[in-house]
Amino acid sequence: MKKFIAYTCCVLTLISCQTNETSVDESATIKKIYDNALTTDLAYNQLERLCKEAPGRLIGTPNSFIAVELMKEYLEGMGFDNVFLQEFSSPAWICHSASASINLEGEEIPLKIDALGPSGSTPKQGISAEIIEVFSLDELRELGKEKVEGKIVFYNRPMSATHYNVFQAYGEAVDQRYWGPSAARDLGAVGSITRSLTYNLDDFPHTGSCRLEGEKIPAIAVSTNDADKLSKALKANPHLKVNIKVDAEDIVTDTYNLIADLKGSEKPDKYIVVGGHIDAWHNTEGAQDDGIGCLQSTEVLRLFKENGIRPKRTIRAIMYMDEELYQSGGNSYLAYSKENNIKNYFAMESDAGGYTPRGFTIDASEKVIAKMLEYKHYLEPYGIHYMIAGGGGVDIGPLKELGVPLCGFRADWQRYYDIHHCANDTFEQVNMREMQLGSAAMASLIYLIDKYDLAN
Amino acid sequence: MKKFIAYTCCVLTLISCQTNETSVDESATIKKIYDNALTTDLAYNQLERLCKEAPGRLIGTPNSFIAVELMKEYLEGMGFDNVFLQEFSSPAWICHSASASINLEGEEIPLKIDALGPSGSTPKQGISAEIIEVFSLDELRELGKEKVEGKIVFYNRPMSATHYNVFQAYGEAVDQRYWGPSAARDLGAVGSITRSLTYNLDDFPHTGSCRLEGEKIPAIAVSTNDADKLSKALKANPHLKVNIKVDAEDIVTDTYNLIADLKGSEKPDKYIVVGGHIDAWHNTEGAQDDGIGCLQSTEVLRLFKENGIRPKRTIRAIMYMDEELYQSGGNSYLAYSKENNIKNYFAMESDAGGYTPRGFTIDASEKVIAKMLEYKHYLEPYGIHYMIAGGGGVDIGPLKELGVPLCGFRADWQRYYDIHHCANDTFEQVNMREMQLGSAAMASLIYLIDKYDLAN
Repeated sequence: MKKFIAYTCCVLTLISCQTNETSVDESATIKKIYDNALTTDLAYNQLERLCKEAPGRLIGTPNSFIAVELMKEYLEGMGFDNVFLQEFSSPAWICHSASASINLEGEEIPLKIDALGPSGSTPKQGISAEIIEVFSLDELRELGKEKVEGKIVFYNRPMSATHYNVFQAYGEAVDQRYWGPSAARDLGAVGSITRSLTYNLDDFPHTGSCRLEGEKIPAIAVSTNDADKLSKALKANPHLKVNIKVDAEDIVTDTYNLIADLKGSEKPDKYIVVGGHIDAWHNTEGAQDDGIGCLQSTEVLRLFKENGIRPKRTIRAIMYMDEELYQSGGNSYLAYSKENNIKNYFAMESDAGGYTPRGFTIDASEKVIAKMLEYKHYLEPYGIHYMIAGGGGVDIGPLKELGVPLCGFRADWQRYYDIHHCANDTFEQVNMREMQLGSAAMASLIYLIDKYDLAN
Repeated sequence: MKKFIAYTCCVLTLISCQTNETSVDESATIKKIYDNALTTDLAYNQLERLCKEAPGRLIGTPNSFIAVELMKEYLEGMGFDNVFLQEFSSPAWICHSASASINLEGEEIPLKIDALGPSGSTPKQGISAEIIEVFSLDELRELGKEKVEGKIVFYNRPMSATHYNVFQAYGEAVDQRYWGPSAARDLGAVGSITRSLTYNLDDFPHTGSCRLEGEKIPAIAVSTNDADKLSKALKANPHLKVNIKVDAEDIVTDTYNLIADLKGSEKPDKYIVVGGHIDAWHNTEGAQDDGIGCLQSTEVLRLFKENGIRPKRTIRAIMYMDEELYQSGGNSYLAYSKENNIKNYFAMESDAGGYTPRGFTIDASEKVIAKMLEYKHYLEPYGIHYMIAGGGGVDIGPLKELGVPLCGFRADWQRYYDIHHCANDTFEQVNMREMQLGSAAMASLIYLIDKYDLAN
């Protein structure tokens, strides 16, 4: 693409002159927020530090504490009104190592695997058993205890490529990972392997959480390439055995949500929450999931402050601990809110990747959604083309109990499962402009909500 | 991001039940097109071959002929009705080598540069001259001949980061590259250096075309990192000299547009053109610019054929030669159309990157635009959120003379200048799903236009 003039004016025509309910034209303020976001690399550089100095920062791990410390220092340097740790205690799970192998023609072939959280451990030498491949939980249950007992269950149904909405495809496939291990155990299986949840054929094992209350068995995810290899090997030799080794432990830990406030001028005791989660799986830098959500949230405060915008309400950035494993950070902030009678007016979360912004989903009354839609035309020139009913996010979800309107920032999602819960979720996969545009969209919407409220 | 249920239904609500002018509901056919595109990796794999076996395929180069041959074989294997070369003759420019260096504290420091096309050559030992840094053509002209003569002009105005529309930022900065060398020469300068057109601070020189009719001087682009280095060195020593070496030649070559037809059932002599350009700058694999446009265009034909959709009109995929340098392919197809009285009914181009699809721009009468808008609701569930007036593309542009309605496919553009005209435009930067979604969007819109026409 060489010529340029033709393109120059294309999207500007998107700036439509719709009527709006805001009393003055806010376009100039929104532009100021975007201009500042698009010319500031502070958050991007801090994301690099978080990714490189504290990868694998699952709750209770040494790196989870380093991450909180790193981000606390960063926020203190920003000069916000209040930066503090909200302490709580939670169960946690520490993965020391995980491996698996199959024996093909006398040679021990390692598989690209990782432990699901909170997988059970094996003896040092691992466990070896025959494999039974299935494509659904129903198929497993139909096989029954007789055929499953003593085996290792291998769930191998791929994500469907034909959904435009990748989260829909994930939702349809993730039961194998989330419920698969306990379903296998209940039928007497001694271990569980799940095909990685990604569209790609590659060598990254994608981990994630499973529900394993009661007796635990080792539960792992295998890369899609090795899932195919394993399936092929099983066809050649149905009695093939796999050896799985997992060394992990369950602990209880004291830990923290990290909170920073920018004090409101009129209603300082009302809080607009904006957050992401600071924890990340043991196998990843956690750049898109969800270091970027933390840094976009802190950018909201910085963009208010740097642009001299004094909010009516206090804007509160929360870096939640433990979204991935037990969601203890979100639940703990709910408990903290109740105990301290915190009035959370609105909550926004960024935890669906930091690619180019596309919209917001809203979990609130129809009246609130209608009110928020009045602000949409200000964001359309920046590529925000939907604000629709939908989930807010895992961390802010518990606040629904208090009637808080919830909102999820939504970025382009087509690449999301390339990086989800695997070693490919690196800082290098983050595009600075895309990240900046997300921060600006979030700050702009919060600016409008704070200034013009959620109800007439 | 762990939980999924909340997301599952979010975007499905985008599928609105708008009234439409098509006589039957076409959703099922559109879904069939998307399903096939999203589960077929043929085009993606062929793009890899094109990128790896024929990089740097500028018109007249050996790799340009290899590229045409590679793609011709691919298309012949697809079983389309007609695959042929449309031959023409054109000036071309071959770059053999380009380098530059500055002497800092006695050490010769190479700069990351590349020649603009069609830069003039230097003697073997290069040319050495003092540098004059400017930030606009106006600033240069104000300096006048006295201060410019015998010097090498260094244009160093960065792209503005604050436009959401990256093509607007490019449009505002590219005069330095396009007109800069001739403006410098006209004031007696002996060479020209332009800061690379990208947002990033990195080491890739981004080349591109310049207008250099008449006497030619060497004209190069320098990476943004080295532009900053050069600017700093000049402040320390205003008499700093740069040495530039360019070895290039102007030739005239016979060459080809590559064309494949899928014959229409009712009006086979009317053509719906869909195209990209097969040439790529000498320093790049040309994956996003514009191997992907070629393969998305050929996918349109494949998607019709594989889904058993017989078009009324002939669908013609054109892989244009020489978009980058002299746009001779587009002009030659216009001449060919005139000579052979080809009735081009509609033309679509993909040459703005193959990231996630976002919309289409239309260069046609208001009536045609209104008609095309009737089809938009079918594409909204797949993330196509705008169809607006705007440019079609450089290759199809000449067809405007014949009154052909033109249409440009528009993907998300935030990463486009990361890869534009530089060595970073590799196959590895292409995401298969994003590419597939583009092919499907293009095929779907062409399907609707062919079936329901452009006028009532």
